[in-house]
Amino acid sequence: MSTFQVELKKVVDDSYDIEIGFNLTGKLIEDLKQGLVGKIQKFAVVTDSTVQELYAQKILNLLTDAGYHANMFVFPAGEKSKTRQTKEDVEDAMLEMEYRRDCCVIAVGGGVVTDLAGFVAGTFGRGVPFINYATTLLAAADASVGGKTAVDTPRATNLIGLFNQPKKVYIDIAAWKTLPKRQLSSGMAETIKHACLANYDLFEYLETHMEEILACEKEACEHIAEENCRIKYQVVMKDERESGLREVLNLGHTVGRAIETLSDYRLLHGEAVSIGMVAQAALSVRLGYMTEDEKERVIRLLEAAELPVAIPDYIDREALVKKLYTDKKVRDGKLRFVVEKGIGDVVEFEPNVYATPVDEETAREILLQMK
Amino acid sequence: MSTFQVELKKVVDDSYDIEIGFNLTGKLIEDLKQGLVGKIQKFAVVTDSTVQELYAQKILNLLTDAGYHANMFVFPAGEKSKTRQTKEDVEDAMLEMEYRRDCCVIAVGGGVVTDLAGFVAGTFGRGVPFINYATTLLAAADASVGGKTAVDTPRATNLIGLFNQPKKVYIDIAAWKTLPKRQLSSGMAETIKHACLANYDLFEYLETHMEEILACEKEACEHIAEENCRIKYQVVMKDERESGLREVLNLGHTVGRAIETLSDYRLLHGEAVSIGMVAQAALSVRLGYMTEDEKERVIRLLEAAELPVAIPDYIDREALVKKLYTDKKVRDGKLRFVVEKGIGDVVEFEPNVYATPVDEETAREILLQMK
Repeated sequence: MSTFQVELKKVVDDSYDIEIGFNLTGKLIEDLKQGLVGKIQKFAVVTDSTVQELYAQKILNLLTDAGYHANMFVFPAGEKSKTRQTKEDVEDAMLEMEYRRDCCVIAVGGGVVTDLAGFVAGTFGRGVPFINYATTLLAAADASVGGKTAVDTPRATNLIGLFNQPKKVYIDIAAWKTLPKRQLSSGMAETIKHACLANYDLFEYLETHMEEILACEKEACEHIAEENCRIKYQVVMKDERESGLREVLNLGHTVGRAIETLSDYRLLHGEAVSIGMVAQAALSVRLGYMTEDEKERVIRLLEAAELPVAIPDYIDREALVKKLYTDKKVRDGKLRFVVEKGIGDVVEFEPNVYATPVDEETAREILLQMK
Repeated sequence: MSTFQVELKKVVDDSYDIEIGFNLTGKLIEDLKQGLVGKIQKFAVVTDSTVQELYAQKILNLLTDAGYHANMFVFPAGEKSKTRQTKEDVEDAMLEMEYRRDCCVIAVGGGVVTDLAGFVAGTFGRGVPFINYATTLLAAADASVGGKTAVDTPRATNLIGLFNQPKKVYIDIAAWKTLPKRQLSSGMAETIKHACLANYDLFEYLETHMEEILACEKEACEHIAEENCRIKYQVVMKDERESGLREVLNLGHTVGRAIETLSDYRLLHGEAVSIGMVAQAALSVRLGYMTEDEKERVIRLLEAAELPVAIPDYIDREALVKKLYTDKKVRDGKLRFVVEKGIGDVVEFEPNVYATPVDEETAREILLQMK
């Protein structure tokens, strides 16, 4: 018997920039010419059926005009497309068009597109570079920092995927204007979540600027886009592998994810998270970390963003309790929740432990007491 | 317009040990108890229908006896199982059995199992640790160092996957005795390849010890297992992302992979590589880097290992030429080959460039001249 040691210690630099502004397609092409992804000449523009005409076609044309080889790969819009099958379809289409390892993926769209395209890039030819061109507030809040990519399966959301950092992220606020009102509100849920877990000032800003934001006014939108990135970055930086602190980003998601799945995606992700935020606030009050008034303030802010705050009647509460167990925070068969502390902070239960076991009966009571 | 910088520079330590010996199942359990994968208590033993009874069941029993939670996930043996569908099946079975992020994958088997299970582990819950228990010479030579995991698609082999380093590799030479003779020979192809590209002494050792190796004698087998690891490690260490040097491991694979696919997997991987090694030697002679005598020595060694050295009649030569273009080394539509230099070295065409463009007509002539 003998042992052979494989030494694989090294410095990895996954740093990248997030560019926030209005109409950034020209900047993207400029960056590519400046060598953003080295000498790569071949680009797979991955997008969905909604964004295709609005933005992806424009980017494709600009790439072609600039002399790059580029093709567009389109899948049907919606969370239901975030599957292994869609990933396979995009891969097969890319292989069919002779894409190999010397290409770059450009994701153009919202969170579903960036999640899926980032995952495609991560396993295509064992990893090719990718760029996120985020066209929604949700993608700006959720997909721009953290490198999380994934697809859903019938049994669990986001459980098949990988950590994969983009080469650059563009947050095009002009694109938010093209969003249906419901989508924009959905994106606000993650921003409100960020404020709740980390930044009381942002919470107050949202309370006083919601109208400007929903009207896509430049200054207010740039401010929240930046704050979203900053909060997420601070959390993610300290805990890239989601071992402890990063779980705080799961605030409101324990119930939110379960409701999203049980609604069969009739609820948008942010809408489900909004309802989950109400549930977590109720739990926080119950555990003594938040006052009833603070909870009401959270609910009023969600309502101001035109988000739902009640569990839809068509969702069976018992099925919902059962569904909570598919949450990735579940450990040793026990439900675990992140708990808000007042407004703008979360409870650290033990050093580097931000989720606490909650027994099923408590979870059930909270869900039954909600509207 | 504003830019937000995401700094993600860090030190990553993916170091691990390769344990080489006879009957290492007990050592595996001992290592787990010593904390090889931390506090993880849940193990997914992934294997194929051939290895299931021979080794995986034993490991499963030992895990259960030691108080761990463990289940076995079995797929049909053979390269044809190395697909996205099999990956999906294993994932679904794991999710069904309530596997989440707090688990470890143990791959028990040959190269197909370690490639597939390593890929499953890399994307399950965005990455869980995995351990390779290699039961074949091929897995020892090919899958123990380098972190390459992948599946095949109808259009290309090994193009969907990722780099994922195991926590430890066990090379159980006792398992080689249970291999069909044909499998053992197939594994020898990668060993011969390693000798050809990097180590003349190993080539001579193989010439003089082939009988002992094919009889699975301890000393000879441990020696070649170690040499395989060493050569691969030296190459991979210097070029983990396969940007240049690592392409030398592709010696013989340009033609080999294409033949493997066109044979519809009637040929084992190593058998196809053996034929590819003859093709690369012929190319090397043609380009003036090898003598006719050296080429004959390579062919004799392959024959001594009971490997095929002629292209089967059922493979159409023109289809083979066309198939070469699915090779991942193809760049700008041009075929590229790694070229052996004498015996035990490869040609470095430019600094850090080890593959050279070969025009289609030259490739065709070489394939037509082969038996």
